[in-house]
Amino acid sequence: MILRDPVHGLVDFEGDAEVVVGALLRTREVQRLRRIRQLGLASLVFPGAEHSRFAHAVGAAHVMTRLTRRIRAVHDALPRERRLDDEAARDALAASLLHDLGHGPFSHLFEEVQPGARHHEAWTEDILRDPGTEVNAALEGLGRGTAERVAAMLHGEHRLPYLARAVSGTLDVDRADYLLRDSHMTGVRYGLYDLDWLLRSLAFGEVAGEDVLAVEGRKGLPPIEGFFLARHFMYQQVYHHKATRGAEALIRGIFVRVGELVRDGSPPEGLPDAMRRAARGEPVPLGEYLDLDDAALLHSFSRWERSRDPVLAQLAQRLRARDLPKTVPLPADDEGRWAAALARGRDVAAAAGLRPDLEVWLDVAEDTPYAEPDESAESPSPRGLWVLIRHRPIQRLSAVSFLLGELCGKTLRTPRLVFPTSLRGPIVDAIEDLLV
Amino acid sequence: MILRDPVHGLVDFEGDAEVVVGALLRTREVQRLRRIRQLGLASLVFPGAEHSRFAHAVGAAHVMTRLTRRIRAVHDALPRERRLDDEAARDALAASLLHDLGHGPFSHLFEEVQPGARHHEAWTEDILRDPGTEVNAALEGLGRGTAERVAAMLHGEHRLPYLARAVSGTLDVDRADYLLRDSHMTGVRYGLYDLDWLLRSLAFGEVAGEDVLAVEGRKGLPPIEGFFLARHFMYQQVYHHKATRGAEALIRGIFVRVGELVRDGSPPEGLPDAMRRAARGEPVPLGEYLDLDDAALLHSFSRWERSRDPVLAQLAQRLRARDLPKTVPLPADDEGRWAAALARGRDVAAAAGLRPDLEVWLDVAEDTPYAEPDESAESPSPRGLWVLIRHRPIQRLSAVSFLLGELCGKTLRTPRLVFPTSLRGPIVDAIEDLLV
Amino acid sequence: MILRDPVHGLVDFEGDAEVVVGALLRTREVQRLRRIRQLGLASLVFPGAEHSRFAHAVGAAHVMTRLTRRIRAVHDALPRERRLDDEAARDALAASLLHDLGHGPFSHLFEEVQPGARHHEAWTEDILRDPGTEVNAALEGLGRGTAERVAAMLHGEHRLPYLARAVSGTLDVDRADYLLRDSHMTGVRYGLYDLDWLLRSLAFGEVAGEDVLAVEGRKGLPPIEGFFLARHFMYQQVYHHKATRGAEALIRGIFVRVGELVRDGSPPEGLPDAMRRAARGEPVPLGEYLDLDDAALLHSFSRWERSRDPVLAQLAQRLRARDLPKTVPLPADDEGRWAAALARGRDVAAAAGLRPDLEVWLDVAEDTPYAEPDESAESPSPRGLWVLIRHRPIQRLSAVSFLLGELCGKTLRTPRLVFPTSLRGPIVDAIEDLLV
Amino acid sequence: MILRDPVHGLVDFEGDAEVVVGALLRTREVQRLRRIRQLGLASLVFPGAEHSRFAHAVGAAHVMTRLTRRIRAVHDALPRERRLDDEAARDALAASLLHDLGHGPFSHLFEEVQPGARHHEAWTEDILRDPGTEVNAALEGLGRGTAERVAAMLHGEHRLPYLARAVSGTLDVDRADYLLRDSHMTGVRYGLYDLDWLLRSLAFGEVAGEDVLAVEGRKGLPPIEGFFLARHFMYQQVYHHKATRGAEALIRGIFVRVGELVRDGSPPEGLPDAMRRAARGEPVPLGEYLDLDDAALLHSFSRWERSRDPVLAQLAQRLRARDLPKTVPLPADDEGRWAAALARGRDVAAAAGLRPDLEVWLDVAEDTPYAEPDESAESPSPRGLWVLIRHRPIQRLSAVSFLLGELCGKTLRTPRLVFPTSLRGPIVDAIEDLLV
Repeated sequence: MILRDPVHGLVDFEGDAEVVVGALLRTREVQRLRRIRQLGLASLVFPGAEHSRFAHAVGAAHVMTRLTRRIRAVHDALPRERRLDDEAARDALAASLLHDLGHGPFSHLFEEVQPGARHHEAWTEDILRDPGTEVNAALEGLGRGTAERVAAMLHGEHRLPYLARAVSGTLDVDRADYLLRDSHMTGVRYGLYDLDWLLRSLAFGEVAGEDVLAVEGRKGLPPIEGFFLARHFMYQQVYHHKATRGAEALIRGIFVRVGELVRDGSPPEGLPDAMRRAARGEPVPLGEYLDLDDAALLHSFSRWERSRDPVLAQLAQRLRARDLPKTVPLPADDEGRWAAALARGRDVAAAAGLRPDLEVWLDVAEDTPYAEPDESAESPSPRGLWVLIRHRPIQRLSAVSFLLGELCGKTLRTPRLVFPTSLRGPIVDAIEDLLV
Repeated sequence: MILRDPVHGLVDFEGDAEVVVGALLRTREVQRLRRIRQLGLASLVFPGAEHSRFAHAVGAAHVMTRLTRRIRAVHDALPRERRLDDEAARDALAASLLHDLGHGPFSHLFEEVQPGARHHEAWTEDILRDPGTEVNAALEGLGRGTAERVAAMLHGEHRLPYLARAVSGTLDVDRADYLLRDSHMTGVRYGLYDLDWLLRSLAFGEVAGEDVLAVEGRKGLPPIEGFFLARHFMYQQVYHHKATRGAEALIRGIFVRVGELVRDGSPPEGLPDAMRRAARGEPVPLGEYLDLDDAALLHSFSRWERSRDPVLAQLAQRLRARDLPKTVPLPADDEGRWAAALARGRDVAAAAGLRPDLEVWLDVAEDTPYAEPDESAESPSPRGLWVLIRHRPIQRLSAVSFLLGELCGKTLRTPRLVFPTSLRGPIVDAIEDLLV
Repeated sequence: MILRDPVHGLVDFEGDAEVVVGALLRTREVQRLRRIRQLGLASLVFPGAEHSRFAHAVGAAHVMTRLTRRIRAVHDALPRERRLDDEAARDALAASLLHDLGHGPFSHLFEEVQPGARHHEAWTEDILRDPGTEVNAALEGLGRGTAERVAAMLHGEHRLPYLARAVSGTLDVDRADYLLRDSHMTGVRYGLYDLDWLLRSLAFGEVAGEDVLAVEGRKGLPPIEGFFLARHFMYQQVYHHKATRGAEALIRGIFVRVGELVRDGSPPEGLPDAMRRAARGEPVPLGEYLDLDDAALLHSFSRWERSRDPVLAQLAQRLRARDLPKTVPLPADDEGRWAAALARGRDVAAAAGLRPDLEVWLDVAEDTPYAEPDESAESPSPRGLWVLIRHRPIQRLSAVSFLLGELCGKTLRTPRLVFPTSLRGPIVDAIEDLLV
Repeated sequence: MILRDPVHGLVDFEGDAEVVVGALLRTREVQRLRRIRQLGLASLVFPGAEHSRFAHAVGAAHVMTRLTRRIRAVHDALPRERRLDDEAARDALAASLLHDLGHGPFSHLFEEVQPGARHHEAWTEDILRDPGTEVNAALEGLGRGTAERVAAMLHGEHRLPYLARAVSGTLDVDRADYLLRDSHMTGVRYGLYDLDWLLRSLAFGEVAGEDVLAVEGRKGLPPIEGFFLARHFMYQQVYHHKATRGAEALIRGIFVRVGELVRDGSPPEGLPDAMRRAARGEPVPLGEYLDLDDAALLHSFSRWERSRDPVLAQLAQRLRARDLPKTVPLPADDEGRWAAALARGRDVAAAAGLRPDLEVWLDVAEDTPYAEPDESAESPSPRGLWVLIRHRPIQRLSAVSFLLGELCGKTLRTPRLVFPTSLRGPIVDAIEDLLV
């Protein structure tokens, strides 16, 4: 199978291991990802960013085909039984394609607001293991036990640990694709890094008796540094963009209010079954969960504009009209002021007759551009990134890279007060002395 | 307002005329375009091509801002009253943004199948003129009569005819954006042409007493040639791709069957109101029409997988499973063979117990890469493209361009027989002698 | 060896066959190509186009490594003895790298003006075969007879004819690289085509008992059409650009005058030995020929600004000051007018006291975007391009491609009168009636 | 004048101020820059990097035209007399185009080795001020005193100080172009940053009573951070590449030896006059200096391969054969080991009969990705970069940017021992214990 992709150009799945991709793409559960946008609300801010989790899944699988090609070019350094065979390559391709399978619309927000809600990772495993799904059938059709191996790989367990880390680790195919894709689609060019050179720089080393895919030589530093900087820039520019965060606060408000209404016994009309059950803390059948996609939720939002509950109706109307909450940045290092600003902002909201806890939020975006496992020197974990320099023992990336050495473990916090446009004047007045 | 766009990079709407863009973007009817994919079924073939008509509308408006900048740089050649003023620029921006406003999901297919169905152009005008729409309110808010002027411009009438032709003509902002955008998003690089240089090459000439935006000098030929070749390549590669055309045949079959069921008095469950009325030949209220978007239709398709009507159920199931019809190319110039192939193919389908007219289609894609108005020399129409060469009278593009001169008026026809995968063997056997 | 390249990105020569590249890059004769610009005078018009024949040679070798990879992916269709082995791959790589080895500065112009001058192709063969060159030593070091095989390949002879055609044919690695490179470096985007997809579309067919690398399937048509259109655009925009052609006329005038002075026994000072001998019709020793590079010639031009010969001095001064000749396009199809324009233009020059034959030229640039061998149906030549469509005999490209079918064999002629800036007014007046 | 450029695409110099560009491009001294490569020896490592200082000069002037457009869009914030007028814009364009005018081939190395040698900045001023140059004539032709103003601007003095800083400062048009150009031409993608957005982010602020072009708002941080990271990456990857540095050591050896021979009274044949005088400490006439270009020096190098001085001959032969010195990285923080390594390496060279001081070098490349003026809080200098955040006083960039705050003032030192390939084994053995 050869596809064209706006990010990677020619994408082919043509080797023996790659048949798994074709088999999975035809399944109902993978096709469902076409109906869930990768960036959720960010397309309100970046109108081109309309790509789905499906396109990203295909991209991640493509990066994995390229990575397995690189591994095969260098795995002669390993004993035969730890080299990449076709079964393991198939596992890795499947895991790459399926890693986001359990995502629902705005699932991060929903999980955050409904304390008992199952996380999308758990749903992914369910879909893989449930014998009733087409994905399970497709995997098992390639050999008994495949579904289980792929599920295990998604939380880091596989007989080839380096492969599991490439599916989900500091430097994995998920990130490798989404940075490029989100960058490309938003038009924010900062997420681009040199994937060709990055793959080319990988070779096998050994840490604590385990094989690791390490960066080979100093010439491999720039692409890996570029990768982490790209990640940081995308957080700053897109994922933590003030308008995106504002919109998220609005959705969060809607979810909270819906939860209250359900628990009060008056669920809003047009509420998807899965959400109703989750709000009640009941188990959600897989089928109902899978029915939840962007369209279903947008349909609900649209119904709720005319909800009998005025609080919900007002929030839904504002979302539809793109009357997104505004944000004001707070001083980065003074948590006392954050609390004060939140309290004063909520007072203003209350005075204006709005529900303070649904309308005014303290939002603290955090980003650590690069970190390494925290550990004692005696027993280093093979996790994280390693560098091979000739004539020297293998080293942590931060010990060799000037940039990442300086940034390692440092965290950028971006605190903001989030509130409705209508309150902008009074809230800014109320907190002005806290801003400088 | 400054946006980022994957195609154009920095997009700004900052001048006086550009306020119209902000006002329109906030309307419900423009936001609806976010929910209608630009390429319809092509995203089944090109997984990255998930962009909506909204993103294209913004892009077309951006091209218009660039074009108006160019016009202002060269319009001193015109008498003052025929130069571009702010009102006209605003009209043109609005028309560019709104040109596809009346599109529904797969509207080309639906209009084709339901003979009485109103065309999307008519819906666009309704939305503009209906005093109940937010778009109408936004336009009239900028000056009485604006909605009417913009509506007129969309079918080519404006006091500055060159501006109306730039909204909808041989070389218009619609095409200028969609070629670049569809190319970018599908990953098919053939749709790229040099927009910078193209805009730069435009200057005013006069034909039959009317101002025309003409290509200035031979150095302007390559970008305009590139534009028409880009268009041709996109037709070949994307719009007329065999898998896209196969998928369209399947949708067409569904629409035909739904129409039959409605007229038989047993409409399928989950049929959107607008479609039910259209199938009955009844007028469709604007509100119902606007409720129709990709999500609504996909939801219906999904319901129809379990329809009591086995014909509809089978078609809907195949669409969901991506079991798209296959195609076989027929000899380009022998219409007799087309008819014979269709007849034999339908016989095979009938023998297999399928509805021949819903399952086997003759599909003839046609593309004329470049054409000029057909006319007598005495009264040339200002339509079409003109070239200004120093010391010579203004000339038709085909008279100056080697490539377009050779291609002018020539048509590529791509006839194919379209049929279900399950009939591939017997149908190919039945028509093999017609293929060579 | 891994290199970075502005056009191809990562360029690697790492296989067994690729050692030949490293060995050849170190030679004095290949390094000399760094000192000869690929586009000669075009960098006067396109300031970025400063790339040398060396960079192009590396690029052509890179395209060959990619092509040999593709050949290896599909050559199982051939009997074993006609498949690509390491020796043949090495020959092809060497030939790709060395195909322009014998070029000197402005060699096309010099060869044109000095009737007896050896052509650069002949020099290339000399360098390959002369046992005194480092290139010869490097090739023979890899196996006796290599130099001879590579030399033969450069004029189309090899035991694998399809490989020889890929070095020098309608679609060869030379063109494949220079279109992309010249496009990239001039900033003229029209020379870009889809090399990835093009390589991917190649497969083996058979014509007249010989293996040919053919385009496989209709999906391979767009990249090959794109390739020929890219070529045409580059001719229009760069190679046949009016300012380039004007500059060439000036250089031609200098070369003619130098030849006259040599034959008159008063060669100008600072004349490179190779040129002096060539002008006299004497054989040029290889060493002297190789000393001739851009710098040497520019140095001569600079000396000639102060030549005692006023004709030469004046021409050299104009070149240095970029006072390039002007051009006026003549009617494309009326050769009678060309002759008349030339005659009148030369009369004007003579009246102004200039040497008419050195100052006024008729320049007819010709370009045939796509052509096929002229032949009877009985004995098709395997040369040219072929297309494999399932269930049909192999066909000429023009029979399948709409665009190339329309353009096949058609020639664009661009006649211009070229003359000194100082004569622009009088010459345009004199020929004005011939221009319309 | 409209040009095409591989880096910036369409480049136009069409406004009133831009006439200065056309006038200067025609001069002999600017045309000379075509014959001096921007990256000197780096084209030995990056074969595509063959661009000249001429192309860079045009690019810098182009960035200035874009910057002046931005300044005009925001300078209404200034009192009328401090706004940009045509004269100042012309000065800035001229200074941008001419900023490297005095560069010679490998001038950094030559200046370093010949203690009394004049620096290229001084030569630039001479060329501007000498009434005998075409550049001086062109500038004065546009108004008396222009040459003087442009010369002053090049070392930071102008009645509009913000404009002088844009010609030569932390963020200037020189860097803005060369990062993009060198990145593009080497194929090292890390030098790309978002110039569009960067220009867009600039607005006027005030520091210590002086106007400064500051970054406006947090949204302007990513492009400016990207700019400094791009710079850092280019240093790591290109300017401080080990092979480039090795080649530089070889050239330095040649220059040192040539100086010795001149002072010994036996200058090598083919030594350019300018170098002979400089080696003797005599003043160099401007004409002689301008005769020195890449070709002249390469010609000398080629002559010196057959020099009677065996030391010089050997060095020149190695350069021609690309037998570049090797490097071994030394521990970054242990200067004691650097000295030890150098001493031991030189002992090895001496034992092998080579001149230790010409063959073995300690090379310490230093890069400070971002720094700010060192100053007391009372009297901030307007130099450096400033950020405007609403409701706050203007701040230094490092106070607002997380990345640049962490990196500010930090220096990466890359010490290496450089030595001939032939000594690799013995030298590595001799210093091995110093490397870990």
